[in-house]
Amino acid sequence: LQAAPPTTFGLKTAGWLAAMQRSRKQLNNAFRKSLVVQFGGASGTVAALGRHGLQAGQALAEELKLAYPDGPWHAHRDRLAQLMCACGVVVGALGKIARDISLLTQNEVGEAAEGGAEGRGGSSTMPHKQNPVGCALTLAAASRVPALVSSFLSAMVQEHERGLGGWQAEWSTVSNVIQATGMAAASIADVAEGLTIDPSRMRLNIESTYGVVFAERVAMLLSPKLGREAAHKILAEATRRCREEKRRLRDVLAGMKEVTSHLDSSVLRDLEIPEQFLGVAGAFQDRLLASADPERDGPIREKE
Amino acid sequence: LQAAPPTTFGLKTAGWLAAMQRSRKQLNNAFRKSLVVQFGGASGTVAALGRHGLQAGQALAEELKLAYPDGPWHAHRDRLAQLMCACGVVVGALGKIARDISLLTQNEVGEAAEGGAEGRGGSSTMPHKQNPVGCALTLAAASRVPALVSSFLSAMVQEHERGLGGWQAEWSTVSNVIQATGMAAASIADVAEGLTIDPSRMRLNIESTYGVVFAERVAMLLSPKLGREAAHKILAEATRRCREEKRRLRDVLAGMKEVTSHLDSSVLRDLEIPEQFLGVAGAFQDRLLASADPERDGPIREKE
Amino acid sequence: LQAAPPTTFGLKTAGWLAAMQRSRKQLNNAFRKSLVVQFGGASGTVAALGRHGLQAGQALAEELKLAYPDGPWHAHRDRLAQLMCACGVVVGALGKIARDISLLTQNEVGEAAEGGAEGRGGSSTMPHKQNPVGCALTLAAASRVPALVSSFLSAMVQEHERGLGGWQAEWSTVSNVIQATGMAAASIADVAEGLTIDPSRMRLNIESTYGVVFAERVAMLLSPKLGREAAHKILAEATRRCREEKRRLRDVLAGMKEVTSHLDSSVLRDLEIPEQFLGVAGAFQDRLLASADPERDGPIREKE
Amino acid sequence: LQAAPPTTFGLKTAGWLAAMQRSRKQLNNAFRKSLVVQFGGASGTVAALGRHGLQAGQALAEELKLAYPDGPWHAHRDRLAQLMCACGVVVGALGKIARDISLLTQNEVGEAAEGGAEGRGGSSTMPHKQNPVGCALTLAAASRVPALVSSFLSAMVQEHERGLGGWQAEWSTVSNVIQATGMAAASIADVAEGLTIDPSRMRLNIESTYGVVFAERVAMLLSPKLGREAAHKILAEATRRCREEKRRLRDVLAGMKEVTSHLDSSVLRDLEIPEQFLGVAGAFQDRLLASADPERDGPIREKE
Repeated sequence: LQAAPPTTFGLKTAGWLAAMQRSRKQLNNAFRKSLVVQFGGASGTVAALGRHGLQAGQALAEELKLAYPDGPWHAHRDRLAQLMCACGVVVGALGKIARDISLLTQNEVGEAAEGGAEGRGGSSTMPHKQNPVGCALTLAAASRVPALVSSFLSAMVQEHERGLGGWQAEWSTVSNVIQATGMAAASIADVAEGLTIDPSRMRLNIESTYGVVFAERVAMLLSPKLGREAAHKILAEATRRCREEKRRLRDVLAGMKEVTSHLDSSVLRDLEIPEQFLGVAGAFQDRLLASADPERDGPIREKE
Repeated sequence: LQAAPPTTFGLKTAGWLAAMQRSRKQLNNAFRKSLVVQFGGASGTVAALGRHGLQAGQALAEELKLAYPDGPWHAHRDRLAQLMCACGVVVGALGKIARDISLLTQNEVGEAAEGGAEGRGGSSTMPHKQNPVGCALTLAAASRVPALVSSFLSAMVQEHERGLGGWQAEWSTVSNVIQATGMAAASIADVAEGLTIDPSRMRLNIESTYGVVFAERVAMLLSPKLGREAAHKILAEATRRCREEKRRLRDVLAGMKEVTSHLDSSVLRDLEIPEQFLGVAGAFQDRLLASADPERDGPIREKE
Repeated sequence: LQAAPPTTFGLKTAGWLAAMQRSRKQLNNAFRKSLVVQFGGASGTVAALGRHGLQAGQALAEELKLAYPDGPWHAHRDRLAQLMCACGVVVGALGKIARDISLLTQNEVGEAAEGGAEGRGGSSTMPHKQNPVGCALTLAAASRVPALVSSFLSAMVQEHERGLGGWQAEWSTVSNVIQATGMAAASIADVAEGLTIDPSRMRLNIESTYGVVFAERVAMLLSPKLGREAAHKILAEATRRCREEKRRLRDVLAGMKEVTSHLDSSVLRDLEIPEQFLGVAGAFQDRLLASADPERDGPIREKE
Repeated sequence: LQAAPPTTFGLKTAGWLAAMQRSRKQLNNAFRKSLVVQFGGASGTVAALGRHGLQAGQALAEELKLAYPDGPWHAHRDRLAQLMCACGVVVGALGKIARDISLLTQNEVGEAAEGGAEGRGGSSTMPHKQNPVGCALTLAAASRVPALVSSFLSAMVQEHERGLGGWQAEWSTVSNVIQATGMAAASIADVAEGLTIDPSRMRLNIESTYGVVFAERVAMLLSPKLGREAAHKILAEATRRCREEKRRLRDVLAGMKEVTSHLDSSVLRDLEIPEQFLGVAGAFQDRLLASADPERDGPIREKE
């Protein structure tokens, strides 16, 4: 059995949200910093305009509503590179959401479903089938963007005042990254709006583990009394029996003297109540939601 | 002929410095933000510690001199991803410096040379040879890091509260990126300290173009009088003759009536003086050096 | 519901095997072709040895049991690039196996389990937990190697007779790729040896879909009689009812006159028997196993 | 000084050609092997067609002039991966040619020039300028394709019988790789047709090193008489003087007794004749051209 103890769907989504907000803020910063005019003429000196290079460039920047940089940057691509990277991180954070949801929507898990917008995700031959197309599009973006970012970074090594090849390579890379990032964001927005959740199935999935996901809980209680190794050994034996005999952990443990002599009977009775083994999930959720609130200015977030 | 009009070595190095400082600041930010403890237990709820999850985590963070995050981030890798990306941009900016220097040190260019520290860069069979090892090491890093960054970004798509494979993939990626970034930084520092520059060779290389790199200058002066197309045609013809007859541009132009009837003789006399066709190179250099000054806080730079 | 009609575990594994064998054969070819000595001296002419360059190189090749190439290849890295690529494809094919198995071993699916070798994959705090470490290691390799391959390919653009940086970048790339490929192969071999399969769970998982995964089967039978659109509509309605009323498809369909008037009763009776809706899975499996047999020489396989 | 002893342009181009032919052959093989129909229905069993799955697939393959595979490959992408990789290697080999040519066409080197086809590569403001656009396009492709290959390899890890996201990610990757490969091949073909070579400049560039590129030659002759270390020391001293006093190596050496007492005067007289220090360049060139001949079937080449 691989399953770890339960968490809450609220903490899971708060984690998604916070990661997305952190990444989005970096993207906003990088985007703002990259809005800088490039105007340097053939060699970066604007020599063709004599002494008027700065004024001409500043006027152009104003016209285009771009910032005017301290120098030419035809062969210095770090601002755009930061933008590409920021897209890459956003898409990674969105891809993680899509991966989680796609795992939750598996038939055998069934804890979530992408809402089937009209005409979306249907199969041409299977009348019953609803494909998680929003997740698929997001995962496709998350599969493509990292390599595109690497392509941009590689191409930063440009020659002198005007690169040969590296600069030209950027054109399709930038448009592909921007498109894929937008596609991922729009797809996850669609998914989020239409997502349906099945809490009873969540509980059922926990129950179907015969309670062994709560073994850690018992081990923690027995360890101070029996020592960590002995406690582990007991639980390993108990969970083995659960699997083989298809019995619940609390019932197996109730028949083991080395357990019952150390634990209060109420502990075993309530052992498999998920709500009683959630640790600080609620506190984490609250903190994450607060940190993801665009209004708040917490200690970990950058100052603008 | 490919050469564009001249620039100054001062503007070139100021551009290197400014790009490096911009990238370094991002790296510092990303590094600071990534110093966050991860302490969530098996499922991110710290359930094994009951109600004490937050305090335990905060105490651990204090002990490790790390920040305490709003929630578990075992499967949310955006902070580390930003760090990897920031390394990628720094290495790209350093790689650009190495590429430029390696081009300048080519035997046929000869405008710069990596200082041969004792026992460094010598050839085992060629007594005369001095290899630009600092540039080589930096370019090697710039060749490797982008793909490693992409590897990290790909691996962000991790499953649920604890990813399978993506997380393990990070270990070697992170150490390789950090090592390569440090190697690139140290190598460029070495190169910068030992770099020797040959200004007379720079002038010679400009002169060896027969002055055709100044054709744009004449075209700009003739265009208002003859129209842009006619001016271009004249210069195209003149530079063709320079190449074929191996004569200087000012001499060829001095024999073309359509030129001399519109330009003052002093223009042709001074045509090929590089110092007179540098546009605002000096102003750009000053601005870049000021922006790269760690003390200054200009409009394009982020606020910390 | 996302589930498609059933396939067999035999076809699945035969597909794994065949992809792995195809990739392995390419890897063997690429490896054999890359065993070529490089001996060209400083400029690729072996000038320091005068007229004896070929003989010296051939003797060296013999000594090292390498082939002797037609020319120097210090800056022509295509043979090694093919080897890196072949590793990349092998690791991709292995990663696909690991992904499939890791999905099958999810607690809620439970159709397969990685055999827990002694001391392998245990959790430090959860006595019941058995982590799929073999899959994790393989997926980690499959996450890392593609970018390393890209790094090698980028570095192929080497200067003249001896590249600056690109060549040095290869050293760590090659060793990382080879190590990761070996790790992936060894891990999947471990997984394959210890893999346990639960056929009853496979059947149970099919049954738990209420038979809707067989909707396509009925649609195919009704389409010739009612037209494709009408048939699809009926099945969409029927599968909706299955989900909402938690009834089996055959029972829902048995109550729909537009169905029973066109289908023999035996069809509905046997509708949900997986063995009757496997198409040519068996034939495909046989073909794949035959093609994966190292002794056989089929039409799609390369000749050696 | 970085320059190594001279090679010949014939050996250089023969090396380009051979690498390109080797890569092209792999590309042809990979392309041929990837022309395989995929026809497996929803789950890879063609269950919807009952027993007729194979015949239907075979008929479809015949219709499309594709091979019929041993099994479905919707989630087994190794054949396409080999194709993408083969494109990556071809583009790398072409990029190396473009890199070399772009270095040769630098103003300060001047040994080659891209032929300016009408309306190609001209600068909008600089009448004299001829940009190496063919090399730029090839280098741009060589900068983009490696990461796209990595994207395809990453996406090989597809789920079960039909992947979610990985498959969709391929669409744009494949078209981008094919387009970029075609662009690189077409661009290098253009470059090759229009390339002009300046042999006198090649000789001039060798001469401008003051003969120090031949230092290895003298070291090889002195070593048997004086020992390797002493010989190296003498040459290091002599080449230092060449640089500082701007004198030719043969003249400097002629004034060093420890040299003249061991070398015949004819050796110094002919020391700087490039044709006498080319080693087996001619033999390598012949071998490479023969191996690149599509008709020949040598030991290193694969058999088809």
